[in-house]
Amino acid sequence: MSWRHPRAPFAEIFGLDYYRRLAESAERAKLDAIFVADHVAIWDSVESGVAHYANARLEPLTLLTALSAVTKHIGLIATASSSYYEPYNLARLFASLDHVSNGRAAWNVVTSAMDEEALNFGRDGNIEHGFRYARAGEFLDIATALWDSWEDDAVLIDKETGYFADPDRVHRVDHTGQHFRVRGPLNVPRPPQGHPLIVQAGSSEAGKNLATRYADVHFAIIRSNEDGLRYRADINARLKKFGREPESFKILPGILPIVASSADEATEKQAFLDTLLPDRVAIDLLSSWAGLDLSAYPPDGPLPALPDESTFNGGRTSLNRVKDWTEQNLSIREIARKLANTGSVHPVTGTPSQIADQLEAWFVTGAVDGYNLMFPLLPEDWVNFAEQVVPELQRRGLFRQEYEPGTLRDRLGLPRPANRFATARDTHRAAS
Amino acid sequence: MSWRHPRAPFAEIFGLDYYRRLAESAERAKLDAIFVADHVAIWDSVESGVAHYANARLEPLTLLTALSAVTKHIGLIATASSSYYEPYNLARLFASLDHVSNGRAAWNVVTSAMDEEALNFGRDGNIEHGFRYARAGEFLDIATALWDSWEDDAVLIDKETGYFADPDRVHRVDHTGQHFRVRGPLNVPRPPQGHPLIVQAGSSEAGKNLATRYADVHFAIIRSNEDGLRYRADINARLKKFGREPESFKILPGILPIVASSADEATEKQAFLDTLLPDRVAIDLLSSWAGLDLSAYPPDGPLPALPDESTFNGGRTSLNRVKDWTEQNLSIREIARKLANTGSVHPVTGTPSQIADQLEAWFVTGAVDGYNLMFPLLPEDWVNFAEQVVPELQRRGLFRQEYEPGTLRDRLGLPRPANRFATARDTHRAAS
Repeated sequence: MSWRHPRAPFAEIFGLDYYRRLAESAERAKLDAIFVADHVAIWDSVESGVAHYANARLEPLTLLTALSAVTKHIGLIATASSSYYEPYNLARLFASLDHVSNGRAAWNVVTSAMDEEALNFGRDGNIEHGFRYARAGEFLDIATALWDSWEDDAVLIDKETGYFADPDRVHRVDHTGQHFRVRGPLNVPRPPQGHPLIVQAGSSEAGKNLATRYADVHFAIIRSNEDGLRYRADINARLKKFGREPESFKILPGILPIVASSADEATEKQAFLDTLLPDRVAIDLLSSWAGLDLSAYPPDGPLPALPDESTFNGGRTSLNRVKDWTEQNLSIREIARKLANTGSVHPVTGTPSQIADQLEAWFVTGAVDGYNLMFPLLPEDWVNFAEQVVPELQRRGLFRQEYEPGTLRDRLGLPRPANRFATARDTHRAAS
Repeated sequence: MSWRHPRAPFAEIFGLDYYRRLAESAERAKLDAIFVADHVAIWDSVESGVAHYANARLEPLTLLTALSAVTKHIGLIATASSSYYEPYNLARLFASLDHVSNGRAAWNVVTSAMDEEALNFGRDGNIEHGFRYARAGEFLDIATALWDSWEDDAVLIDKETGYFADPDRVHRVDHTGQHFRVRGPLNVPRPPQGHPLIVQAGSSEAGKNLATRYADVHFAIIRSNEDGLRYRADINARLKKFGREPESFKILPGILPIVASSADEATEKQAFLDTLLPDRVAIDLLSSWAGLDLSAYPPDGPLPALPDESTFNGGRTSLNRVKDWTEQNLSIREIARKLANTGSVHPVTGTPSQIADQLEAWFVTGAVDGYNLMFPLLPEDWVNFAEQVVPELQRRGLFRQEYEPGTLRDRLGLPRPANRFATARDTHRAAS
């Protein structure tokens, strides 16, 4: 509800200029990437959703593709749903963005947990959790195969001989699976990054397995250094099962940094944001996230029993967050306000130096590889962070002063994926 | 095959800069719009397709969205398939492009006639012609309803009262049809143009009916002034059936302008382009377009009997073009070369003044409303046109000197669509 803040933007959130200024400022601060979250529906299962919630938004691929033309270095992480897109179309959109941005495209794969989303795509309600994740895995198998379908040297444009492409280096993918049949090849040459960067944020069992199997970057929920170290150990064990090295996978917890010159100022800032959120909206949000209708329960009483995670088809990450709070004996109203204010994002408040201390602490122990910064109030909280915290991190040698050349993968130290078709041929040759 | 021309571009066709320069030049010439064609497959049913044909390309929405950030006035016409997209996703992409471009988005609706396309989307081969067009109509019903689902004044962002939107002005579309079920509302506010401009190019019966029912702009095949006047009469009769005025619909034939200082130079230019096209590729193309395997027929003999249009599921426009040529007793080789060189596009060659004469002739009689310019050799043929023909048209008062303010619809003199939900409420109020 921070859209109600006096210094929050108005309808300029539906035009390009507002985001162009934010992106330019993020690029001046040398950030790795811009991330745009998404849903493929408006949240309207409860009445207050349409009225009070900032439901309308620009589609992320559109926004980030437009920004690719007015930025040079910064990565572009667009959220898109593996449950409600066709693999050929989405693989093509990301391959094309990777080309026009010179290797800066990243796909945050989401499986879409809302009933409202399912209803926009011919379904009666949300699809089963396991089904969504199985489809996501198959979707990623196809997308990565399509990105490989043109080998790196397949395009010849040999005007003398008339060969536009080398037919031996352009491949059908001939996928037939549970969810899709896709022949290929893609009609876009291999992306500069080989595969656009894959990001996954699921923290359920299925989510962590999908992430460690396919993703390069993982948005995680981490609340302490110990928590982070434990989480990384769990992740590393999963990576090993998939034959991957820990270095090929970056863990970035979401944090909510609020720069304040004193503890009092930070409390005041939060208290003011709190006044912008009607209880009704917070409780409606909690109803949606927890899969319960709470409208008839007393707001100051306890939450009724939550659904069982193993059969819950909504977002299990949020469900577990709520479960943690119920164990702290918080009321419906208190849990609802916590959820609405920060979701599952860890707040980091203080002076620039105190914030830098906290960011440094988790980073130097290896608990995290970086952070997914989220701000309650844009552009103000971001500008404060960029002007005050970034220079402090640079002084400490924890953050770059200038962009390194190369693609987003290069910058993050992530390998460019080998091409499965070229690898298969080389293996075949070596064997024969 | 003009990619083989010594002055044709190389791999820069997969980056943004090449198109940015073309777009900037088109904007300097004050053109209405840039149009990007598309297929959702590579043409590989015949072997020569992959080897010799410029199959790989950037996805049009990506390319035009990136260009929207570096241009200010020019319209952006992206091709997208109603057979292989989900309405919610595509309506959202075009709505978002219309927002970031301040009302310059246009959708060229295609139904995708190639077998290769069907195979990338879980089908065994191309879907039946009538089915494709029925789906396109239903797709457009949904897309336009989704664009209306937020009324123009639905977004409030009223920080005082906490109303982000007026729930009475945000509507579900609740569509249940033969091909789709979509609940809505869209999660993007109404596009600046109301609906992004709709373009349709089908010249079959089904194509012309789809165009006159839903489209604002029609890419047509017109070969003479008389042909154009006949075509418009046919179109006007169809518009009337759908309750539309002739002025609400713009007919733009495709033309292939080649500036040459003499008839000899024009012939020479064409002859040189001809040398770049191997017979084999031309005949393979003809095989695909006509739905016949011609590889075993003597190239200098006649075409075998063509499929019947009424049961042909490929592109009927090309089929009819081929049919016209067989009636002129041309050989397979001759027809193939004609098809490959200009497709169904009318060539207009001569000096700048001669080309202007021809463009003026069809325009002043009302046979056409403008032209869809296609060039055999980019950027050269376009640059010649921009520098030599555009000034001549401006001198004659046939073409603008400066952009008028407003959206693409405004510039083309096309009305902004009324919002069906607002209209329904007003009608209800007036009646009660």
